[in-house]
Amino acid sequence: MKISIERGVLLKAVGQAQSVVERRNTIPILANVLIEAEGEQISFRATDLDIEVVDRAPAQVERPGATTVSAVLLHEIVRKLPDGALVQLADDPRTGRLSVTAGRSSFALATLPREDFPVMASSEYSANFSAKAGELKRLFEKSKFAISTEETRYYLNGVYMHVAEGEEGRALRCVATDGHRLARVDTALPAGAEEMAGVIVPRKTVNELRKLLDDDDMDIAVSVSETKLRFATPDITLTSKVIDGTFPDYTRVIPAGNTKRLEVDASEFARAVDRVATVSSEKSRAVKLVLEEDRLVLSVNAPDAGAAEEELVVAYGDERLEIGFNAKYLLEIASQVDRENAVFMFNASGDPALVREGNDTSAVYVVMPMRV
Amino acid sequence: MKISIERGVLLKAVGQAQSVVERRNTIPILANVLIEAEGEQISFRATDLDIEVVDRAPAQVERPGATTVSAVLLHEIVRKLPDGALVQLADDPRTGRLSVTAGRSSFALATLPREDFPVMASSEYSANFSAKAGELKRLFEKSKFAISTEETRYYLNGVYMHVAEGEEGRALRCVATDGHRLARVDTALPAGAEEMAGVIVPRKTVNELRKLLDDDDMDIAVSVSETKLRFATPDITLTSKVIDGTFPDYTRVIPAGNTKRLEVDASEFARAVDRVATVSSEKSRAVKLVLEEDRLVLSVNAPDAGAAEEELVVAYGDERLEIGFNAKYLLEIASQVDRENAVFMFNASGDPALVREGNDTSAVYVVMPMRV
Repeated sequence: MKISIERGVLLKAVGQAQSVVERRNTIPILANVLIEAEGEQISFRATDLDIEVVDRAPAQVERPGATTVSAVLLHEIVRKLPDGALVQLADDPRTGRLSVTAGRSSFALATLPREDFPVMASSEYSANFSAKAGELKRLFEKSKFAISTEETRYYLNGVYMHVAEGEEGRALRCVATDGHRLARVDTALPAGAEEMAGVIVPRKTVNELRKLLDDDDMDIAVSVSETKLRFATPDITLTSKVIDGTFPDYTRVIPAGNTKRLEVDASEFARAVDRVATVSSEKSRAVKLVLEEDRLVLSVNAPDAGAAEEELVVAYGDERLEIGFNAKYLLEIASQVDRENAVFMFNASGDPALVREGNDTSAVYVVMPMRV
Repeated sequence: MKISIERGVLLKAVGQAQSVVERRNTIPILANVLIEAEGEQISFRATDLDIEVVDRAPAQVERPGATTVSAVLLHEIVRKLPDGALVQLADDPRTGRLSVTAGRSSFALATLPREDFPVMASSEYSANFSAKAGELKRLFEKSKFAISTEETRYYLNGVYMHVAEGEEGRALRCVATDGHRLARVDTALPAGAEEMAGVIVPRKTVNELRKLLDDDDMDIAVSVSETKLRFATPDITLTSKVIDGTFPDYTRVIPAGNTKRLEVDASEFARAVDRVATVSSEKSRAVKLVLEEDRLVLSVNAPDAGAAEEELVVAYGDERLEIGFNAKYLLEIASQVDRENAVFMFNASGDPALVREGNDTSAVYVVMPMRV
């Protein structure tokens, strides 16, 4: 292999691939990136055996070939090269090293044989559809805060993507929950997604996916089978195993009969919650909400540190209600609200609350109360 | 106590005081800040028993008094209050709490008696002088990278500030070393400093001091005794114990007979060192320098990861020299160089190198070689 490539193009391609690589690896080759040069293209492939990313970039290929080198090391070197430099990659079968040269800098990196690199088996995908990057980003970014970190409930360690009957018709839906709060986000069902199997997308995949979805208007090709899913742009393909488990029936958790309606400026609410929570001890972080006619009082009482109280002018017309919540959960939900106002629907002190973004029906959040 | 103060003024004063407070305290009152209101002024005093900071700010004092509250908690609350808010602090002797109110937010913070707060004993200072903040900042900021972190060599855990015969006459001098590298920085001796005892200023004091020295043109009142030193602006007074030990005779470490002169663009040199060091294992980080007529080759050879080499055009007219250094030490010294060029003076492979910033005589660095 012998190729030339502009440093900026190389940095972008290697950067996206190397972020999949786990920092601590017991299998040495998993620390490496597989570089393949052919035609007028170079590709970088990295995997942790659950996720595989392939980044492609145009390059001047003088001699096709393939090898693997440390992903982190290659990324670090390219990052430190001066902007605009022309970088040459060439493998030397005699020494078994990959030379990286640019200007007066030259590096010879240890390689491992390309044959040892685990390439993810290709799959038959039962559903293939196209969706705008912006829509996919919204589905995952708005739901991922509720992903459970409890390893024993592995089936909650991801976002459940499936087809559902939404409030505005058939929808592509993402749901995440950890038992304390839940997020449910819909978008119009793309053509071709109707028969898609519901899949649980692991947390790491959701985070890696973020980088593919930078350009809101880009069309992303999505393919789904019962065990894998794939997201592809012309430059990047991300393939991931899905979590092998059954996502619980979340619909029973979403309260339908809550009638006490509070409407509040979302960012004012978030700032007030954040302030009163300052005095609470790290562990409990319970905030009490007292609702009366157009008035919300937030308070925290921490025996050691002290007490805090804050009053907000809100829209509320029902009977007096006292209810407690974990401050962190309230803040995370409030920060999802893109509209000016957050709408809370309550039933009673012991019942979960439903949160919406203004009158938008495409996203719904549920948060469990806490005794205060 | 009952006072009113603008949120921005309060934030600045509390912020500077709270940074001295250690996050983990076995003595509860050391987590607190002592608030004293009198006349038209409020002061915030914080200490870790080795350093004491007092911040003063103008305030509308309705009822003088004093109390102590958690420094971190007060700082967090004030930080989260809206900009421009008028904040009221009032202690309630009945509940033993300090109320903090601003707009519709109110807090009641636990207090500890002011009598329990350890106020640092005042000292007789044997030398008092005034120096520009910019000059003091330069002395400490340029030397502190060489402070030793080895606790057993406690007398090297700070910057040695003393009066010395500099290359341009009598000087106020700061020196730090960890045995591997040394920094020596001079400034013209301020009037009144002539009789100053040499003192070792602890690392934490050097770091806290940074915040006092923001405005280069400000005059800082410096007072020094054999056990303490004090830096004061009209708003802030920082008092610190000095390290009780003898700083070693560093003058013997500074090579006087090095004749092989290398002049190199400091930032080009730093970037090249950084690049070749990428392949070296974290622990050794040895970079080899090979000097020939107007040519410097930097190289690293790491058996596991690979090799790196970079060539620089430099000014060098002596015989060929091979010498190795710790990459981190070279980078730290190169980053001190404010002039365009760094000047290295070498003797032989096994001897320490001397580094200067261009033709500036006020700062000198020494770095020990490494076998490569």
